[in-house]
Amino acid sequence: MELVEIGRVESPLKERGSAPKQGDGGAPDAWLAFEAGFATALDGIAAGDELLLLTWLDRAHRDVLRVHPRGDVSRPEQGVFNTRSPDRPNPIGLHRVTVLAIEGARVQVSGLEALDGTPVIDVKPVLGGIAER
Amino acid sequence: MELVEIGRVESPLKERGSAPKQGDGGAPDAWLAFEAGFATALDGIAAGDELLLLTWLDRAHRDVLRVHPRGDVSRPEQGVFNTRSPDRPNPIGLHRVTVLAIEGARVQVSGLEALDGTPVIDVKPVLGGIAER
Repeated sequence: MELVEIGRVESPLKERGSAPKQGDGGAPDAWLAFEAGFATALDGIAAGDELLLLTWLDRAHRDVLRVHPRGDVSRPEQGVFNTRSPDRPNPIGLHRVTVLAIEGARVQVSGLEALDGTPVIDVKPVLGGIAER
Repeated sequence: MELVEIGRVESPLKERGSAPKQGDGGAPDAWLAFEAGFATALDGIAAGDELLLLTWLDRAHRDVLRVHPRGDVSRPEQGVFNTRSPDRPNPIGLHRVTVLAIEGARVQVSGLEALDGTPVIDVKPVLGGIAER
């Protein structure tokens, strides 16, 4: 099960310590720079669309199985599968974003908490108008 | 970017042609059989919880970049990133499910359209009560 990088995040967020926990925590707009060969797979996506973006959180720790939710040590430890911690066996980030602009194989999105340079691994439409982060 | 299998789907759905397109299309209940080493990462998950399940759609075609949405040839082709087609460069399935029961490292969930034997790669809680498929 080997992932291919379909693109990369371009963001002012450079370090893990500076990133908000979720996209609604003051995350900045960002660009998704897709590999040219995948541009055709973006056909139909338009400004204003809501997307689910899957990323590979390459600075996460894959051997962590339990964490304090949101890093708050006053809260009891939980299994990582009951949290959104980036530290988990397969560090896949799931982000709900809104498309602001499209320029060829570059897509600008709002409120993305992923760090600069994070690999993009998939993009999916939000179904039925139901939202998710 | 190498994924590890954290578990496997046990489902009455055996073939791709028999699977509904989404979990709301009459998908059956299924069991998620997690590897014993990941059981601690499930701590805190309980019956009634809504989860986002990420799977590796191992019977998908990774070289497909454009499809007719939902296989309907009367609809114009779109880029796969604007559809939920399993055929895509990184065939990751995203499924919203409800936990029905937990027995050790086995979790029963409702309405899962993934096929029997599909590798499970991640589990996340639904945030803020907002639903997603």
